[in-house]
Amino acid sequence: MFNKTHTKYIQSLHHKKFRDENAVFIAEGTKVVLELLDSREFVCQQLFALNEWLSDHAKTLQQYSGMELFAVKDFELEKISMLTTPNNVLAVFKKKEPVQTLPVKGKITLVLDTIQDPGNLGTIIRTADWFGIENIVCSHACADMYNPKVVQSTMGSLARVTILYTDLEAWLQENSAIKKYAAALHGKNTSELRGVKEALIIIGNEGRGISDAVMQLADEKITIPKRGEAESLNAAVAAGIIMSAVG
Amino acid sequence: MFNKTHTKYIQSLHHKKFRDENAVFIAEGTKVVLELLDSREFVCQQLFALNEWLSDHAKTLQQYSGMELFAVKDFELEKISMLTTPNNVLAVFKKKEPVQTLPVKGKITLVLDTIQDPGNLGTIIRTADWFGIENIVCSHACADMYNPKVVQSTMGSLARVTILYTDLEAWLQENSAIKKYAAALHGKNTSELRGVKEALIIIGNEGRGISDAVMQLADEKITIPKRGEAESLNAAVAAGIIMSAVG
Repeated sequence: MFNKTHTKYIQSLHHKKFRDENAVFIAEGTKVVLELLDSREFVCQQLFALNEWLSDHAKTLQQYSGMELFAVKDFELEKISMLTTPNNVLAVFKKKEPVQTLPVKGKITLVLDTIQDPGNLGTIIRTADWFGIENIVCSHACADMYNPKVVQSTMGSLARVTILYTDLEAWLQENSAIKKYAAALHGKNTSELRGVKEALIIIGNEGRGISDAVMQLADEKITIPKRGEAESLNAAVAAGIIMSAVG
Repeated sequence: MFNKTHTKYIQSLHHKKFRDENAVFIAEGTKVVLELLDSREFVCQQLFALNEWLSDHAKTLQQYSGMELFAVKDFELEKISMLTTPNNVLAVFKKKEPVQTLPVKGKITLVLDTIQDPGNLGTIIRTADWFGIENIVCSHACADMYNPKVVQSTMGSLARVTILYTDLEAWLQENSAIKKYAAALHGKNTSELRGVKEALIIIGNEGRGISDAVMQLADEKITIPKRGEAESLNAAVAAGIIMSAVG
């Protein structure tokens, strides 16, 4: 039965420290939870849902063994949820083993230099999944891919995109054979990317852009042509526009 | 001097009801506040800032008459701010008179059907400003353009984009002479928009897309080509990709 120990445990998982210690993360909402279950990329340990949700999804849930199911009341879900409007289901999943390398040959790979906002990171992962970009490299200063806000804004795409956290400079140097495009305020038009099938595409921080050290490793700067007055674009929007321009 | 009455007043402005009653809204952070001041599109009534900020910007502030300046302490700013990490300045601006019509001839106009998330609406306004799209039409069910989260995510672009709230169906019928493209999951490739100089581009709700009634008024459906698995794109990202494809 659902009790205070569960509440405390799940609340602790809102913090990276405890997610790391327990090697788990939380996901909320029918779409995200079912997509993560369905992918079989992540093992579900515990699932907390309203009675109605459990009966509606009984058949689906039978396919997955080894997880504990808990019926919770509205007010209990509210306590463990990180959403302002709690959904009807919250699940605790085991993290995957961190990847050590990524295949970059013949592929488009996204490289994120300090994307700090969890919503932006999640949205970028979701957009990459839309455009069939399978791999993302993140600097250590990026938001945690298991942050609940990242998980929510991926809308389930977390299961289909592989993410490597690494020292960007060293990693870019190791992959010097692949052409590197850096998103910048001044550079060649993104139409340069048309037809490109193999590349590393570097997106920078929300406020500061790409760090100097990383920028020096890029082969070419690319820019989304500006026709108006805004000083910059939101990082997730910029990443989306660039991804749409590739290939 | 800054007092409890100010605190209560500004906290009340986090709610639409009180923004409407007072015909004002709040903006936070150096960039947003200075851009709104600089635009002279909005009249600032009151400005609350840390002492240091006030002296750093004394010269700039002298250019604007008629506003009350208040030096506040960190903890006071925290009380009135809606940001998790309060910035060093918060200002109360008068709203503009709502626009009644928009010039659409020879222009690209964005039409938003129930964009509910304030962050998405603000990001779309900012992106429109980047691409030189001057006008946006919002259904009444869209987020309020003066919601603090909208204002923050526009990053100052609120001053440069004109927004009309209206009954979308009636408005689209009145503007039947202008070609209407609707963002949809199945339609022609967004490359259709290349070279287009006059159009209404309709973007739908985060979860449900464009309503049936509005969709029926569209001339053509357009789709961002999908090469991967994600079911959909974030609304602000989709709007950004479509705007980047126009013209």
